Amino acid sequence: MRKYKIEPIARELEADLRFKIDHKTKPIRSLGGLEGIALQIGLIQRSLTPILSNPTIVVYAADHGIAHEGVSAYPQDVTWQMVYNFLDDGAAINVFCRQHNIALRIVDAGVNYDFPEDLSGLIRNKAAKSTKNFLKAPAMTVKQAKSCIDSSANIVRAVHKGGCNTIGFGEMGIGNTSSASVLMSLLTGFPLETCIGRGTGLDDDQLNHKLEILTKAMMRHGQPDSVLKTLCAYGGFEIAQLVGGMLQAAELRMIILVDGFIATVAFLVAHAIDPAIKDYCIFCHQSAEQGHGVLLNFINVKPILNLNLRLGEGTGAAMAFPIIQSAVNFLNEMASFESAAVSTRND
Amino acid sequence: MRKYKIEPIARELEADLRFKIDHKTKPIRSLGGLEGIALQIGLIQRSLTPILSNPTIVVYAADHGIAHEGVSAYPQDVTWQMVYNFLDDGAAINVFCRQHNIALRIVDAGVNYDFPEDLSGLIRNKAAKSTKNFLKAPAMTVKQAKSCIDSSANIVRAVHKGGCNTIGFGEMGIGNTSSASVLMSLLTGFPLETCIGRGTGLDDDQLNHKLEILTKAMMRHGQPDSVLKTLCAYGGFEIAQLVGGMLQAAELRMIILVDGFIATVAFLVAHAIDPAIKDYCIFCHQSAEQGHGVLLNFINVKPILNLNLRLGEGTGAAMAFPIIQSAVNFLNEMASFESAAVSTRND
Repeated sequence: MRKYKIEPIARELEADLRFKIDHKTKPIRSLGGLEGIALQIGLIQRSLTPILSNPTIVVYAADHGIAHEGVSAYPQDVTWQMVYNFLDDGAAINVFCRQHNIALRIVDAGVNYDFPEDLSGLIRNKAAKSTKNFLKAPAMTVKQAKSCIDSSANIVRAVHKGGCNTIGFGEMGIGNTSSASVLMSLLTGFPLETCIGRGTGLDDDQLNHKLEILTKAMMRHGQPDSVLKTLCAYGGFEIAQLVGGMLQAAELRMIILVDGFIATVAFLVAHAIDPAIKDYCIFCHQSAEQGHGVLLNFINVKPILNLNLRLGEGTGAAMAFPIIQSAVNFLNEMASFESAAVSTRND
Repeated sequence: MRKYKIEPIARELEADLRFKIDHKTKPIRSLGGLEGIALQIGLIQRSLTPILSNPTIVVYAADHGIAHEGVSAYPQDVTWQMVYNFLDDGAAINVFCRQHNIALRIVDAGVNYDFPEDLSGLIRNKAAKSTKNFLKAPAMTVKQAKSCIDSSANIVRAVHKGGCNTIGFGEMGIGNTSSASVLMSLLTGFPLETCIGRGTGLDDDQLNHKLEILTKAMMRHGQPDSVLKTLCAYGGFEIAQLVGGMLQAAELRMIILVDGFIATVAFLVAHAIDPAIKDYCIFCHQSAEQGHGVLLNFINVKPILNLNLRLGEGTGAAMAFPIIQSAVNFLNEMASFESAAVSTRND
């Protein structure tokens, strides 16, 4: 695996950015969360006039051996069927990306299906046809994990070369909340019960079954002695590729839009590899998936949206995008008290 | 004052809309809050394929006699100066409306300033140059209140004639959280302490002073025996015009975007006049102004955004607009399980 060199964010411009924000024609801090986003983006881009160019969401799809243990409300076939739906422009993420003029890239990170060779629009980066069932064996080998990270980094480099400086990461993979919940538990120390949820819609009995299966799996593999080995034990391929994509994006000083539960767990893995990544990340929404609120608190961030979404695909990142754009726009376009000749505070 | 005939929302299409929402290629209810918005808009428009046409935000500006009692952090001149800023495209609401292709209309509802007659772009609907100081006299007469309501309704009818079916209401007026807080207290029964806040940025001493002044004013006028007289006692002109605009918009079965604290208080007044208005309202954001969260709970609604904005101008409505558009878009554009040949749940 390559070493990703993530520069800590430069803070030289902080005072100038705050001055600019505070002199806009509005009461101090009255744009709330938007002001923090504007500051962060200005710092990332080292500019008082930042821009978001060619925003892109990359959706990684992969399958999970653990899906055969009845941990999801949907059959595994939904993964490859949804890949077709993405390519045919019919999924929620297609609708929201089209609405906001966000480019969308779909990656086969390890779907259990042979897509025809002439299928256009799909980025081929299949690690294998599904991870192994981690109740019985490690989900992937160390070699596979490293290859997922570096090959996904190549995808992000190509996106960056196309002029993109703002990138969101989405995922699709029946069973992937199982991998994510175990990873969250091991990387945060919260008990598994706190980290699991209903995924795409388990009932109470099914949720108990999921807890039982994952508890067994954790007894089998325990807590490996490195973050990479933890990722290998529990999967999945799309999570590993999200990790690589995020590391590469931060190295390139791109703005990273972190989507829901799975993407935030991928962030957690990337953060364990290099904590400097956090400054480049904007946390876009809080999922309805139970563990996500706890995880966002643990990371100590307040997400932009809290709309009870639990769909994945990068949909939360796409829906938060216009608000991030608003932060950049007010910084660039609003008049100042001076330029508009508006009076300032009494005191 | 004219009688506004607001039809209760028709629910005939509810089952069909829910069927359509539940058959989109996503887990049931996984689009969270978006699904409720899509349903509401479908019901308002009596359509399985609703559209938002010519969205418009109308900002009403007015001054408040109570501002002379030191209840605001900013001088009264800011009101007219900000009207110029709106007309010159320099305010936050200009930036966000431009971003989302929302038409913006600026109304002089009672600014304490003589705008030149040849100033273009300003809708003239001045009730008077500022309300009276309600520490000393009722803020406005019954005649003025009724005229504010009906004349603002005329403005909304003209907007509707221009093809708009989705309208947000913004406000600007130094001192208007004072009027709004007293109105909230009297219309909800919450003590004034719960209903007041820092407005555009009072410190602790200034907030105590505001509480003292408003308590005195409430002792003077008490609780008038009708909602209209309550509005007259405490003001303001922009609030009265928001009330008229909302009543008219609901009568025309338009979608009403309710902005922050002041706009929600105007909704409260309109709701006291005709409760059927609520079905037409989408509550766009929760302001940082202390009373707003309490008020939204009282109305029993969950706002779309919670970004700590406290700027008014309709900025929360403008920022929530793309999310409302997303709700309409997923309903119209996403594939269904059947059309995309995606498998449904296991059970």
